[in-house]
Amino acid sequence: MTAATRPDLTIDEVRLTPILVADPPLLNTQGVHQPYTPRLIVEVVTADGTTGVGETYGDTKYLDLARPFAERLIGRQVTDTTALFALADEIGVAGSPGGDRLDVGGLRGVQTADKLRLSVVSAFEVACLDALGRALGLPVHALLGGKVRDEVEYSAYLFYRWAGHPEGVAAEQDDWGAALDPAGVVAQARTFKERYGFGSFKLKGGVFPPDEEVAAIRALAEAFPGHPLRLDPNGAWTVETSLKVARELDGLLEYLEDPALGTDAMAEVAAGTGMPLATNMCVTTFPEIEKAFTRGAVQVLLSDHHYWGGLRNTRELAAVCRTFGVALSMHSNTHLGISLAAMTHVASTVPDLHHACDTHYPWQSEDVITERLTFEGGRIAVPDAPGLGVTLDRDRLAALHARWLADDGTLRERDDDAAMRVADPDWVTPVVPRW
Amino acid sequence: MTAATRPDLTIDEVRLTPILVADPPLLNTQGVHQPYTPRLIVEVVTADGTTGVGETYGDTKYLDLARPFAERLIGRQVTDTTALFALADEIGVAGSPGGDRLDVGGLRGVQTADKLRLSVVSAFEVACLDALGRALGLPVHALLGGKVRDEVEYSAYLFYRWAGHPEGVAAEQDDWGAALDPAGVVAQARTFKERYGFGSFKLKGGVFPPDEEVAAIRALAEAFPGHPLRLDPNGAWTVETSLKVARELDGLLEYLEDPALGTDAMAEVAAGTGMPLATNMCVTTFPEIEKAFTRGAVQVLLSDHHYWGGLRNTRELAAVCRTFGVALSMHSNTHLGISLAAMTHVASTVPDLHHACDTHYPWQSEDVITERLTFEGGRIAVPDAPGLGVTLDRDRLAALHARWLADDGTLRERDDDAAMRVADPDWVTPVVPRW
Repeated sequence: MTAATRPDLTIDEVRLTPILVADPPLLNTQGVHQPYTPRLIVEVVTADGTTGVGETYGDTKYLDLARPFAERLIGRQVTDTTALFALADEIGVAGSPGGDRLDVGGLRGVQTADKLRLSVVSAFEVACLDALGRALGLPVHALLGGKVRDEVEYSAYLFYRWAGHPEGVAAEQDDWGAALDPAGVVAQARTFKERYGFGSFKLKGGVFPPDEEVAAIRALAEAFPGHPLRLDPNGAWTVETSLKVARELDGLLEYLEDPALGTDAMAEVAAGTGMPLATNMCVTTFPEIEKAFTRGAVQVLLSDHHYWGGLRNTRELAAVCRTFGVALSMHSNTHLGISLAAMTHVASTVPDLHHACDTHYPWQSEDVITERLTFEGGRIAVPDAPGLGVTLDRDRLAALHARWLADDGTLRERDDDAAMRVADPDWVTPVVPRW
Repeated sequence: MTAATRPDLTIDEVRLTPILVADPPLLNTQGVHQPYTPRLIVEVVTADGTTGVGETYGDTKYLDLARPFAERLIGRQVTDTTALFALADEIGVAGSPGGDRLDVGGLRGVQTADKLRLSVVSAFEVACLDALGRALGLPVHALLGGKVRDEVEYSAYLFYRWAGHPEGVAAEQDDWGAALDPAGVVAQARTFKERYGFGSFKLKGGVFPPDEEVAAIRALAEAFPGHPLRLDPNGAWTVETSLKVARELDGLLEYLEDPALGTDAMAEVAAGTGMPLATNMCVTTFPEIEKAFTRGAVQVLLSDHHYWGGLRNTRELAAVCRTFGVALSMHSNTHLGISLAAMTHVASTVPDLHHACDTHYPWQSEDVITERLTFEGGRIAVPDAPGLGVTLDRDRLAALHARWLADDGTLRERDDDAAMRVADPDWVTPVVPRW
């Protein structure tokens, strides 16, 4: 093929569709998931009519960045993903110069203007790669250097949860029931194993006093001997509590995730225990790596291609981790099938992936693709169809967008703290460390 | 395009052609370049008839690894470059288990079996990317995420040299003349500037006592005010001498390259001077990075895509450097146009490239491509034609291969020390540090 006969890869059109997707009442240290959570679906259309899709966080602050960014994409090539970062730097965050800290970002780690921009860029990068792959007849993994495995293993993501959202809150229902104690957690894990075949389990902690969560892990260890287990209290504990839990769960956990908040505290915990520590909170951007790695604060980095700016950046992050002897695995926040496909493609290309990746996907009853990805033995088969290998369901997309349009604004920003106050008006915004 | 209609990217054939190319009598701390130097040209042919080319070191130890590697490539996809590394691991180095140190590798830094394998893989990776780009109608830079600049700046690579090889040695002649003192070095720099427009100059040092080389740099600084200058004695100096030279050349050098040998010595020098230190010797593999970066031993890493395993790995190396605040630039050993094109493509995609790259290319009077790359203002325009944008000249390739076939074996291994003994039978193999 010559340059003259190849498909025209110029970006002609970009579509942004904010949506609200059903989310179960999953508990964490900051509160509870809202009945609906915002996501942003990005479509990039090339001059030859190929459409690529991407997905990212959908809160207004992301949308406000995505709109001017989308305008500037017109006329560019879908091949040129590296240039997206310089383009994003040109977009200011309202009232905030580039690189400034906006807030500590709750469960998503520190949030700088740079990181917000990267989370936005990631959706466009994935959409460009999807379009490029479709135009060339190649799966996304082939654009990233090729898969080195045919399936990617995921972990069951256990949550303390209520059976349903608070009365009076309109929301989709599911059949999972409540899980508020060790027995409930074990029952949830059994359902995960039966339905999806997951071989490892992660419990979202920081919800109940540490002793109760230690008891839940012990119950899981007893119920599922030999299955890797993890506990993630989202930085809810002091260093002292973290060390106590590490001692108590010694030999039972594959790793302990973000027991304490920030690199200093994590380094202190790491120095006092042989338990590997994982993070998706104290290291969520490249500038945070040097301090954490040189101080030995983390042994497993849980990447999230949204935070890190896309799939090529995720591969580069994997190289940084490999070079410093830090393991790489994957974090997940509420996401749909487009992002799961993206995660699966990039994970299939990383040679040294030794832990099952996290995913919220089984918790999502809704999606925007025609055929949802399915877990077999806790694994997703790496798609070999061109692009990401998923097809947008325009009717579903329109319906979820209509829900976003109809919302009065309260659900357009994910706010687990506010959602908790709906159920419990006396709920006090937690100050970490809580224990 | 669907997967069914895309070109068949399966590797059907691999051709290896060892050659000997003319090399001028350039001096370094280990001796002098031989009249001819070995290179290996790799061709990868896909099922749809597309041929991609790559180039690497051509000494027998590389060739011995490339042969079994080439056999195993048949039937693989040219997209799947990440899998090349695991494939290479399957190939043993004769008599040496994987990862073992073979020798300290002279000017090429430490040589482990792993590094030899990476140097071989790099030629195949480049050939695969060239073939992929040609088959898809895309330049190699587009396969790497897209160029972020339209030209790549290179530095003039000044050498102390003789006018010709020792009498009795059959060799091509050039018109550069000798350069054995400050005036000769300045004259050589003028020629470089006139012929190619280079705006920065690197002097290969370690040939004469440091005072003479300091004098040469001072003469360059006087002749070319405002032009970035560098000096590279290939680790020939003690820490004490390195610090003395750093003091003497304070404010005159952009950076000092490998003044002393090894990370420990480089860290000692770095601790004692504000002069930035560059290396292509103490850090030439990923496992060497952690110690050097955490100790602040180097401020500029000169990558060589041959050492580092190819173009995708070079991008990953750039990410590691960026994360740790180390600048990236490019090292060069004797190479032809295929490698210069590969260097230019990858360099065009690295956002933070703040130093002109090294290249030996102007010293090479011979090549294996139909149209040589040309410097304008010291820069190479980034090729936008499919693949690398170079075309193999089969007649030239055959002629240089015939020279390799005709050689009795003495020139098939590059040996600057042996070459020096031809001119000076009393030459004693230098022990570093020499000064």
